[in-house]
Amino acid sequence: MFRRQKAQDEGEKEPLLDEGEAESLADFRPLVVLEFSSKTTPVTREWMKSKIEASKRQGGADLNAKLVVARDGEERVLLVSAPQERLLQGAEQMGLKKKYKDGSVRAFTFAERQNVEDYTESLEGMLTMSQSQYIIKVELDNIRALEAENHIPGCSHPKARLYKGKSILSRMVSCHLLEKMYPVHNPEQLKRLQHDWYHLNKPKQLIGGQPIETIRGYFGESVAMYFSFLGHYTKALLVPTVIGVLYYLFNESGRNDFVIFAVFNMIWATVFLETWKRTSSAHAYNWGTLGRKVFEEPRAGFHGKLGVNPITGRSEPVYPSWKRLLRIYCVSFPIVILCMLVAVVVMMIYFWAENIAKAKHKEENTMLTQGLVLVPSIIYSVVIILMNQAYRTLAQYLTKNENHREQSAYENYLIVKLVLFDFVNCFLCLFYIAFVMQDMNYLRQSLAILLIVQQLVGQLQETLLPYLLMRKRIKKGEKSGLDHVSKPLHEIPRSKQAEVESLMDRYEGTFDDYLELFWQFGYVFLFSAVYPMAAFWALANNIMEIRTDAFKMCRIFQRPFMEPAANIGAWQTVFEVMGFIAVMTNMALIGMSPEIQPLLEGYTTIQKVLIFVAAEHLIIFIKVVLAFAIPDMPEWVETQMGRIEYQSTQALKKQAQLHRTRWMITSAPSLDYENYNHS
Amino acid sequence: MFRRQKAQDEGEKEPLLDEGEAESLADFRPLVVLEFSSKTTPVTREWMKSKIEASKRQGGADLNAKLVVARDGEERVLLVSAPQERLLQGAEQMGLKKKYKDGSVRAFTFAERQNVEDYTESLEGMLTMSQSQYIIKVELDNIRALEAENHIPGCSHPKARLYKGKSILSRMVSCHLLEKMYPVHNPEQLKRLQHDWYHLNKPKQLIGGQPIETIRGYFGESVAMYFSFLGHYTKALLVPTVIGVLYYLFNESGRNDFVIFAVFNMIWATVFLETWKRTSSAHAYNWGTLGRKVFEEPRAGFHGKLGVNPITGRSEPVYPSWKRLLRIYCVSFPIVILCMLVAVVVMMIYFWAENIAKAKHKEENTMLTQGLVLVPSIIYSVVIILMNQAYRTLAQYLTKNENHREQSAYENYLIVKLVLFDFVNCFLCLFYIAFVMQDMNYLRQSLAILLIVQQLVGQLQETLLPYLLMRKRIKKGEKSGLDHVSKPLHEIPRSKQAEVESLMDRYEGTFDDYLELFWQFGYVFLFSAVYPMAAFWALANNIMEIRTDAFKMCRIFQRPFMEPAANIGAWQTVFEVMGFIAVMTNMALIGMSPEIQPLLEGYTTIQKVLIFVAAEHLIIFIKVVLAFAIPDMPEWVETQMGRIEYQSTQALKKQAQLHRTRWMITSAPSLDYENYNHS
Repeated sequence: MFRRQKAQDEGEKEPLLDEGEAESLADFRPLVVLEFSSKTTPVTREWMKSKIEASKRQGGADLNAKLVVARDGEERVLLVSAPQERLLQGAEQMGLKKKYKDGSVRAFTFAERQNVEDYTESLEGMLTMSQSQYIIKVELDNIRALEAENHIPGCSHPKARLYKGKSILSRMVSCHLLEKMYPVHNPEQLKRLQHDWYHLNKPKQLIGGQPIETIRGYFGESVAMYFSFLGHYTKALLVPTVIGVLYYLFNESGRNDFVIFAVFNMIWATVFLETWKRTSSAHAYNWGTLGRKVFEEPRAGFHGKLGVNPITGRSEPVYPSWKRLLRIYCVSFPIVILCMLVAVVVMMIYFWAENIAKAKHKEENTMLTQGLVLVPSIIYSVVIILMNQAYRTLAQYLTKNENHREQSAYENYLIVKLVLFDFVNCFLCLFYIAFVMQDMNYLRQSLAILLIVQQLVGQLQETLLPYLLMRKRIKKGEKSGLDHVSKPLHEIPRSKQAEVESLMDRYEGTFDDYLELFWQFGYVFLFSAVYPMAAFWALANNIMEIRTDAFKMCRIFQRPFMEPAANIGAWQTVFEVMGFIAVMTNMALIGMSPEIQPLLEGYTTIQKVLIFVAAEHLIIFIKVVLAFAIPDMPEWVETQMGRIEYQSTQALKKQAQLHRTRWMITSAPSLDYENYNHS
Repeated sequence: MFRRQKAQDEGEKEPLLDEGEAESLADFRPLVVLEFSSKTTPVTREWMKSKIEASKRQGGADLNAKLVVARDGEERVLLVSAPQERLLQGAEQMGLKKKYKDGSVRAFTFAERQNVEDYTESLEGMLTMSQSQYIIKVELDNIRALEAENHIPGCSHPKARLYKGKSILSRMVSCHLLEKMYPVHNPEQLKRLQHDWYHLNKPKQLIGGQPIETIRGYFGESVAMYFSFLGHYTKALLVPTVIGVLYYLFNESGRNDFVIFAVFNMIWATVFLETWKRTSSAHAYNWGTLGRKVFEEPRAGFHGKLGVNPITGRSEPVYPSWKRLLRIYCVSFPIVILCMLVAVVVMMIYFWAENIAKAKHKEENTMLTQGLVLVPSIIYSVVIILMNQAYRTLAQYLTKNENHREQSAYENYLIVKLVLFDFVNCFLCLFYIAFVMQDMNYLRQSLAILLIVQQLVGQLQETLLPYLLMRKRIKKGEKSGLDHVSKPLHEIPRSKQAEVESLMDRYEGTFDDYLELFWQFGYVFLFSAVYPMAAFWALANNIMEIRTDAFKMCRIFQRPFMEPAANIGAWQTVFEVMGFIAVMTNMALIGMSPEIQPLLEGYTTIQKVLIFVAAEHLIIFIKVVLAFAIPDMPEWVETQMGRIEYQSTQALKKQAQLHRTRWMITSAPSLDYENYNHS
């Protein structure tokens, strides 16, 4: 629709857009930005633009597009937009669900738009901006090569092959022709969101109290789900914190009878995780993602022989699952086990070196030996960080190599790998101290140091690092003549916005945020029996965490595309498993503590051990029963889901009857239908 | 359609039907028989008949019905039938799934009937007889009272109230007006089924090898699922049997190192239960019951204030779930626990009395005291049987009192109650012998006796009892002049068939059969470490069990209505839980056995105990990982389900587009649709 004239372009290198251009851009309202790499030729870029603008019948996406020049003077930035009606039609095609005026949540249809709760005559506001951007992303992903197209035009890359049905965008990514693709921010909405979210002017919102619905509207379900979980977890920490602090204050005698507290914590972990399932399913119902199993397109990195997908019948790469299983069980699995063993060996070396250093210090007791005692710890800390980074790269490589078709499967297999190794890396030295060295004071001390240091480092990473990134960005921007780059987005002229956002870093998903909570959950729940104050530190951290994470989302990173989510996926299982491991560790810790012995006087040692084993089994049994007894959905959600199910069955029946009636008219008047009525 | 003349009826008391009547009945081909109680008046019966024959618009079922006289000379027997087209329309309304010629399994529609795999021009054979009968049952259940009907006509029962939408049949049952309702047998099919199923002429079919598809066709999914499970379980027992027998034969030294065997058994239980899930989902896919969550109508016994069902919007009794939860947790749960405690106390008394008797015998050693030693065992056996029966009645009463709306919920809560008590009743004395008395020889002996006796009693119950019932039936039949009653159904004239079947007992569902397997599973797997031969006895029993159960189904009982089933329901969980308990008992048994001690020389007693606890946790961990790693569905079923899901999404999109096109034509020509095409 907007065709730029070459002549006009050439005049406007710095500043990026002249006043007239900015005016016309104001009308255009870009939703998504694509940045081609400097390797692309104008032919390729114009071809892509025409593809995006072409009608669906011609294999295009039927969207509006506009090429603008980037900082290097090339027309490398493509702005994409669409009118509201087009987006609503896309929403219908995607099967997006909306709340109707009768209170039900079901698939949106354009024909029924007047019955939707937030219907307006201008159609504005019926889709959140993040939904609009997501629809555009899906439409762009779905631009597929036609029969005649077997190569990306104007591109000499040897791998730029195409075949009928291949997603053009994913090919452009895999050939490094497309550098960036991101949805633009909405400065006004963002300003309001920031205000509601993390400005500390509402003390009652200190814990939880996040504007989850607004977050979902702006960042989508996946991000909102993370923040809701973080809030729920933080609220759940309140109870152990209060008990832990009371123990700390009124238990000066030094006796550490944390038994009741530890048992409470083990049960509490299950209650918290089960109630979270209820909260998340209520969210998912309201957001229209509950029970919705959308057919997933293959990941960009997925490869295989060209074949036919048995589900869709479309031609796409096919990869036999026995090959994948072979790679998982014969390559990835042994390597992961090996890495875990290496981590164990490194830890053993550390303890061995420390022992030697300590012995030496005891023997000689000089300044030098005192310094020597610290050396193993310092080296070990550095080694842990290095191993962690190396392993992360390895895990990603292995999981990519497993060649999962779906992004969700890729993520789940990556989560399992990271969690297994991190468990060994973070907690094994504590297990060693607890169960091999059996030094409870050392354990308490190490736990406190690890928890607090790791949280401090985490907070710094999320405040200092972004700050440094921002400084770097500002410098880079100022060098190329952009003077708005240090300001919040709503203070920047609209025409400069895309350029500022382009400098921002990409948000890589909620992965690291969940991993951080996983560590913390481990420190708090695995060793409650020796260090009840852990809950307090975790709570304090999380109150900050909500704010720093929110700041990170709003100010540091490019806006991410929304991702539909009905729950927190594999993380739910990960936390649940940790809850069960916590029972074992805590019961072992309690059994070993000298304070518990007088309570069991008169029993033999074996009997004492057996009593603890029985108690451990009993607690696990209670947890399992609780998990069964607490329904995963609130009753109202269950009723609504039943209603949707029932109504769709009824609708199908009606449709079938329509079919039959048609058939009656056309082919078989002989059968006796007289008495047959559709009640 | 068939209206009988009064005059004709009065002549035919004995024999039941005259020759002409028998002829017309041969045309009629009854599918379902209803027997009114002797309390009903002719007015009520004629009203019911007219209801069944009335068109759907008039609130009827649009089926054919025929009143015939019963043995007491009253016209109390109502035969119901329907033409094939009517049944196929019912199948469509019910959402029955069928296999189409393209290999997919999806909802049957009459319009598409020509694309169904087993289509015939006459429409015969498109529904199995059990499906036809089930459709009639559903249609009969769905005859609902109209606005004007507030009482069953011709009935003085004070509770025979009706209200609009109330199922008339369930009211007739609750007022004891309807005595029996059962589908008739098909003698020819039955004969063939018997031949394929349990005639021992095919030795290769000794284990498994049942004609599951034919069973499903004749008795429906629920029964076929039970027999398939029984076959799968029997096959799975082969491996432990072979190992157990080998141990028995080549281990004459008396050393009982069953450790490896026991560990194998623990893992094997998981493998067997997980592979069963795969088998059952393959069945369910082929039978069109997979993923099908049908809206359940309320149970006949369900009561509550008349309200509106939030799912259907229809008026029906409503019962608040907090009241139900109150009854479950504050009435049923404490009573069940109390019963279990009583069982424990009774067991303790038994062991106490036996000890006294044994001591007395040791002291005096007379014939009298030798007899005395047996007295506690005899009394205890009788008490166990009495307690079991009393508890069963109590459990049914309690579960009815919980007032579950759905039959499935009622059954699940009943299963939990029975399984909890039976666990204590069957296995607790073995636990006592194993872990309190620590007498392994006595344990082995008791286990063998309990297992073999219980199986013998079970077999007798399923062969002798039916034989006695059959004798009684024959006598009863002969008294009233029926001389065909002792013959198999296919040797009886068709006109007498309903009368013979009416004398048969009702099959109460697969409940008792599963409970028997539960006991057996417990005996085999809970104590594998001391008695590996248990698997052999179980296998031998099950090979017989398949035949006796089959005989029972084919010859003893009235044909049951089929019940759709996608899996074995709560029993899967019950068996899985038993598998985990078995790890605990076996590891404890191994730890206690004197043979294991030399292997762990050099360790302290505590260390030994801890090693066993660690091993137990490891095995449980392996079981959990296995359960995760073995997919619950075969890959082809998963693909097919994904395909159905995808196609229905596509169909919904198309439908939505149809809507929009319609709307375009009628209301909004202003929007630009030119470029918008449906790819």
